[in-house]
Amino acid sequence: MKDWSKIAVALHKKTQGKLEIRSRVPLETRDDLSAAYTPGVAEVSLQCAKEPLLSYDLTMKGRSVAIVSDGTAVLGLGDIGPYGALPVMEGKAILLKRFADVDAIPLCIDTKDPKAIIAFCKAIEPTFGAIMLEDIAAPACVEIERTLEKELGVPVFHDDQHGTAIVVGAAIVNCARLMKRPLDSFRVVVSGTGAAGSSVCRTIRALGVKSLFAYNKLGVVTKKKHAEYDFVVKELLDEGIVDSFEGVDSLEAMMEGIDIFVGVSAPNLLKPEAVKRMAKHPIVFAMANPTPEIDPLAAKEAGAYIVGTGRSDHPNQINNVLAFPGLMKGALQARAKKMTPEMKLAASKALAELIADEELSVDYIVPGAFDPRVADAVAKAVRAAID
Amino acid sequence: MKDWSKIAVALHKKTQGKLEIRSRVPLETRDDLSAAYTPGVAEVSLQCAKEPLLSYDLTMKGRSVAIVSDGTAVLGLGDIGPYGALPVMEGKAILLKRFADVDAIPLCIDTKDPKAIIAFCKAIEPTFGAIMLEDIAAPACVEIERTLEKELGVPVFHDDQHGTAIVVGAAIVNCARLMKRPLDSFRVVVSGTGAAGSSVCRTIRALGVKSLFAYNKLGVVTKKKHAEYDFVVKELLDEGIVDSFEGVDSLEAMMEGIDIFVGVSAPNLLKPEAVKRMAKHPIVFAMANPTPEIDPLAAKEAGAYIVGTGRSDHPNQINNVLAFPGLMKGALQARAKKMTPEMKLAASKALAELIADEELSVDYIVPGAFDPRVADAVAKAVRAAID
Repeated sequence: MKDWSKIAVALHKKTQGKLEIRSRVPLETRDDLSAAYTPGVAEVSLQCAKEPLLSYDLTMKGRSVAIVSDGTAVLGLGDIGPYGALPVMEGKAILLKRFADVDAIPLCIDTKDPKAIIAFCKAIEPTFGAIMLEDIAAPACVEIERTLEKELGVPVFHDDQHGTAIVVGAAIVNCARLMKRPLDSFRVVVSGTGAAGSSVCRTIRALGVKSLFAYNKLGVVTKKKHAEYDFVVKELLDEGIVDSFEGVDSLEAMMEGIDIFVGVSAPNLLKPEAVKRMAKHPIVFAMANPTPEIDPLAAKEAGAYIVGTGRSDHPNQINNVLAFPGLMKGALQARAKKMTPEMKLAASKALAELIADEELSVDYIVPGAFDPRVADAVAKAVRAAID
Repeated sequence: MKDWSKIAVALHKKTQGKLEIRSRVPLETRDDLSAAYTPGVAEVSLQCAKEPLLSYDLTMKGRSVAIVSDGTAVLGLGDIGPYGALPVMEGKAILLKRFADVDAIPLCIDTKDPKAIIAFCKAIEPTFGAIMLEDIAAPACVEIERTLEKELGVPVFHDDQHGTAIVVGAAIVNCARLMKRPLDSFRVVVSGTGAAGSSVCRTIRALGVKSLFAYNKLGVVTKKKHAEYDFVVKELLDEGIVDSFEGVDSLEAMMEGIDIFVGVSAPNLLKPEAVKRMAKHPIVFAMANPTPEIDPLAAKEAGAYIVGTGRSDHPNQINNVLAFPGLMKGALQARAKKMTPEMKLAASKALAELIADEELSVDYIVPGAFDPRVADAVAKAVRAAID
C-alpha cells in the first residue's frame, strides 16, 4: 500500500498548492497591453457595465465557478475550518478544469454564519457564472442554498448534497436496468439524513423509488421522534419523501427484507449480519469517507449482489466528480440563472445512460471517474433540461 | 491610429475574458487523484487546519492575491460597478502573473458598503496571501484600507492610492538625481487629493519633499476651506503633509515658481500658460487617465523640462504596473502580515535605483513597463524592508 498521506504532502509542498492562473491573451508587447489592458479595456468595461449579460462573452464570468466553503464539514474530517478546507477545494477546482474545462476558484472563508455566507455569495455574483457550495455542514448548508436559490442570479449547487445524490441516483437506475426490475419495486434504506442523505432521498424518490426509509444518529427515522429532528429531517417526513419506519429500533432489524442500502453516514455502521437479513440480491452502497459503512469485501461475503463505495480501489465508485464538472459546464454554457431539480435529475439519467445494456454488470453500474464522455454527456442533458 | 476599443472587444470575445486556471499537478491516473485529492489530501487538510501558516507551503495561499473591487472608480470611467470593473481586474491579474509570477484572482463584488467590503476581505483571508484593493472610490477606499490594515492578518494594498504614488516617488527621486538637486529644494503642487493624490502627497513627503501644495475640485487647498474637505484632505492639512496655500485661488496663479506639477485629477486641467509660470526647468507629471491634465507635447512646447504621463505612447510612463507586481511578490515571499509604509518607500527607491546615473535622461526617469528587472528588484527591496 502506498502512503498517500506522505505522497500528498510532498506533492503539495513541491508545487505550493495545486492551482495557478494563466493568461489567455499574449502580454509581450505594448500593443498586447493596449488590447488586453489600457486603453482598450475601457470599452470592454463600458459594455459590461451597460449590459451585464455581456460579461458572459467578454470576461471570465462565462467560464468560471466560485467554490465556496466554510470548512465545517470537510471530507470525513468534520469542522476543520477554512484553512483545512482549502487543499480540498483546490482539488475540486482542478478536477473541474480537468474534466470539464471549467475555471473554478476556491474561496475558503472565515465565517460560519449562514447570513454572512449568503452575503458573501451574493457579493461575488458579478464575477462568477455559478457558485458551488462545498463542505458546509447541515443543516446550515440547506438554509444557505435555499436562500441563494431565491436571491441569486446565477445557479448555486451544493455538491455535498446533490453531487453524491445524482451519482447514487444513476447507480440505482442502473441497478434496476441490470436486474430488470422497476424502480418502484425496491425497498430502500438511506443511512444518514444530513446534506448528502437528505438529497439522496429526494433524488431517488423523484427518480421513482416508492418505498424509502431512513436511519440517522437518533436511530430509525420515525414520525414518533419528529420533535427531535432538525428541519431537514422533519421536511423529509412531512413531505412524504421518507416513510416513517415503525416497529423496530436497530439498523440491523430495519434491514430485514430491504433491497438497497445507501450509506452516507459513518464508518462500520452496517454489520454483515444486517446484509444477510436483506432481500434477495441485496444492493449496498457504502459511501462514508474514508472508511465505508461496511467493508466492500465483507459486504460481498455477506451476500451483497452489487456493492458500491466512494473509493477508487473498488468497482462502482460513487464519486461526485461524475456529476459536478458536467453540471457546472452545462449551467455555464446555458448561462443558466438557476440550478433546478430537473437539471439535477437529467444529470442522473444521463450518467446512467452512458452505460449500454450489454455493458452493465454488477461491477459496472456507474461510469469510471476518467470516462472522457461523462462531463459532456451531463452538460448536454443539463442544458436540455433548462426551459 | 489603431482602434484599441474595437481590437480589445474582439480579443475579449475571442478568449472569453483573459484569465483561466491551470492545475500544477498531473491528473491523468487514479494515483494522481489519490495524491492530489482523496485520500491523500486529507492529511494536507489536517496539517493546514492545525497550523494555518503551513497553508503558505501547501496551498495556493502562498502564491495568491485577491484583487477586490466594487467598481466605484474604474480607470477614468467613474462608478461603473462590478461588471464594468471585471475586465480591468482580469487585466491586473494577468499583469501580476506576467511580471511577477503571482497568481491573482479578480473578485468584483456587488456592494459599495465599506463595512461589507471590509467583512468580505476578512472572510477570504484563509485563501489569499495578500489583498489588493482596486478602483474603489475615495474616501471609502481609505477607510477600508485602514480598517483592514488593523484587522487583517495578510497585507492589504490599495493600488490606486499607493501604486501610482510609489512610481511618482521614484520619478521625483530620479528628477532630483538627474538635476543634481536635493529633493527638499523642489516646490511641488499635487493636483487631485483623492485616492492617488493623497498617497502621492504622503509618499513624496516621506521621500524628502519639503514644500508641498495641493489643488482639488474645491480649488487651491488651503486651511481656510478646512471645513469643506473630506477627512482625507483634512488629515493632509492637519498632519502637515500638505502646506496650506495662501493668496491665490486659481491653479494657474498657484503654479508661479513651482518646480514640479503632479496631476492625478482631470483632463486638460493644466494650461500651457500655467507651465510657463513655473520655475526654471519645470517638471510635469500629468497622469489623468486616459486624457492627461496637459498634452505631453503641449507641456514640452510650453517649456517643461521633464514630462511624464500614464500613457505608453510617450516617454516616462508612470504606470503602477512598475509597483504592484513586485510589491505583491515581495510580500508573499516574506509571508508578510502587513504592508507597511516602509515597504512602499523601499519599492519607490528600488525603482529609482534601477536606472544608473549615466542612463538617466529627461526621457528616461522611470524604468519601462517591460523592463524584466523591475518586479524582482522591487520584491527584494520590499522583503528587506520587513523587520
